[in-house]
Amino acid sequence: MKKAAVLVAGGKGTRMGGSISKQYLPIAGKPVLMHTLEVFYRVDPSIELIVVLPESDFELWEELVKNHQFTVPHHRVAGGNSRFQSVRNGLKSISFDEGLVAIHDAVRPFVKEEVVAASFEEAARSGSAIAVVALKDSIRKLTDDGKSFFQERQYFRLVQTPQTFQLAKIRKAFQVTELPQFTDDATVYEHQGWQVSLIPGNPENIKLTTPEDMVYADFLINLSKTPKI
Amino acid sequence: MKKAAVLVAGGKGTRMGGSISKQYLPIAGKPVLMHTLEVFYRVDPSIELIVVLPESDFELWEELVKNHQFTVPHHRVAGGNSRFQSVRNGLKSISFDEGLVAIHDAVRPFVKEEVVAASFEEAARSGSAIAVVALKDSIRKLTDDGKSFFQERQYFRLVQTPQTFQLAKIRKAFQVTELPQFTDDATVYEHQGWQVSLIPGNPENIKLTTPEDMVYADFLINLSKTPKI
Repeated sequence: MKKAAVLVAGGKGTRMGGSISKQYLPIAGKPVLMHTLEVFYRVDPSIELIVVLPESDFELWEELVKNHQFTVPHHRVAGGNSRFQSVRNGLKSISFDEGLVAIHDAVRPFVKEEVVAASFEEAARSGSAIAVVALKDSIRKLTDDGKSFFQERQYFRLVQTPQTFQLAKIRKAFQVTELPQFTDDATVYEHQGWQVSLIPGNPENIKLTTPEDMVYADFLINLSKTPKI
Repeated sequence: MKKAAVLVAGGKGTRMGGSISKQYLPIAGKPVLMHTLEVFYRVDPSIELIVVLPESDFELWEELVKNHQFTVPHHRVAGGNSRFQSVRNGLKSISFDEGLVAIHDAVRPFVKEEVVAASFEEAARSGSAIAVVALKDSIRKLTDDGKSFFQERQYFRLVQTPQTFQLAKIRKAFQVTELPQFTDDATVYEHQGWQVSLIPGNPENIKLTTPEDMVYADFLINLSKTPKI
């Protein structure tokens, strides 16, 4: 079955005056987004790789690709005004109609190859595969009047990416008006009345969003070289 | 107001054949539990510090104290068969009756001094102070029939320690038969029909439980020496 991956680099463009988006920052000397692309390429070099970037970042990305002599084949697609719109643009650009697509945050370079592979298998079987992890800490729920209540943590899962789907179904799901509850792709799929399947993610597959995360990322990337305790 | 801290080292004793409990393992050359004690000592050297350990570990701990020339004053109390019983033993051993007590996991050495100080202030005001952090990822709830549903993550908090209380109230709360829902001290307090107060914890205040956590701990302890990106 044909496979694609849409890597969503939702961060704002560098022209907007903010600090440089995390997907371009280096870990172990190489931009985050290149590490992420390489994971999917190692899973299966035939996966059609699509990178959704703010159009204003295209030039920067081309320069990075040239400077790093980055050879993993991929397509570049312009993002929209929201994550939802960026993913929709990515889904439209896929060159085939029958197959599977993994939607993944570009700033999650630590996803394990086994998780990506398992997500394609489960999506082929059931229509969808959402990577989730269990909670290490207890959890409480807040009420609108400022109280909080104990919750049984075994009933909860933290949601990561990849979120992998049968392409025809997720394309159909994205043909709706954007709603506030669409915080990820699973909720868009669910909005059709379809139930999502969960698969175990890997806990270190964190979303790199803060400067501290980048320091941690450098630590993680060197972990394999560190002697085990 | 008088203050105490009960540091709960719930890990099983070293005589039980398991691997050495994380509270005795070194980070930056010093056992985890000593780092944790030092945080509370730095907040206020007058805090009565109580360490709850499996009785079979007393000899090991004494040896570590001697070898590391560890001078932070503290009392040693024997733990029970569960976290609930260990905390109850710790609460009983406090030398005063009117005041505040912070209950804290011994294997959370990265709690910030500000969080400990804030927890005593809030507990003095309202009776309790539970350190919590917001979720970085989306969250789903599982149902008993294998389905899962999107949850609005802004309504959830991950629970850490310290969990700080007015001593008389928490002692009273622990005079009950242990129940399965007592996964932390907040739930014991709540069982009296009292509402707990939440305070912001610090996200890096993780519970060290796996070998990977120990590697991460070494990374965190060196973080202040690392140049910022």
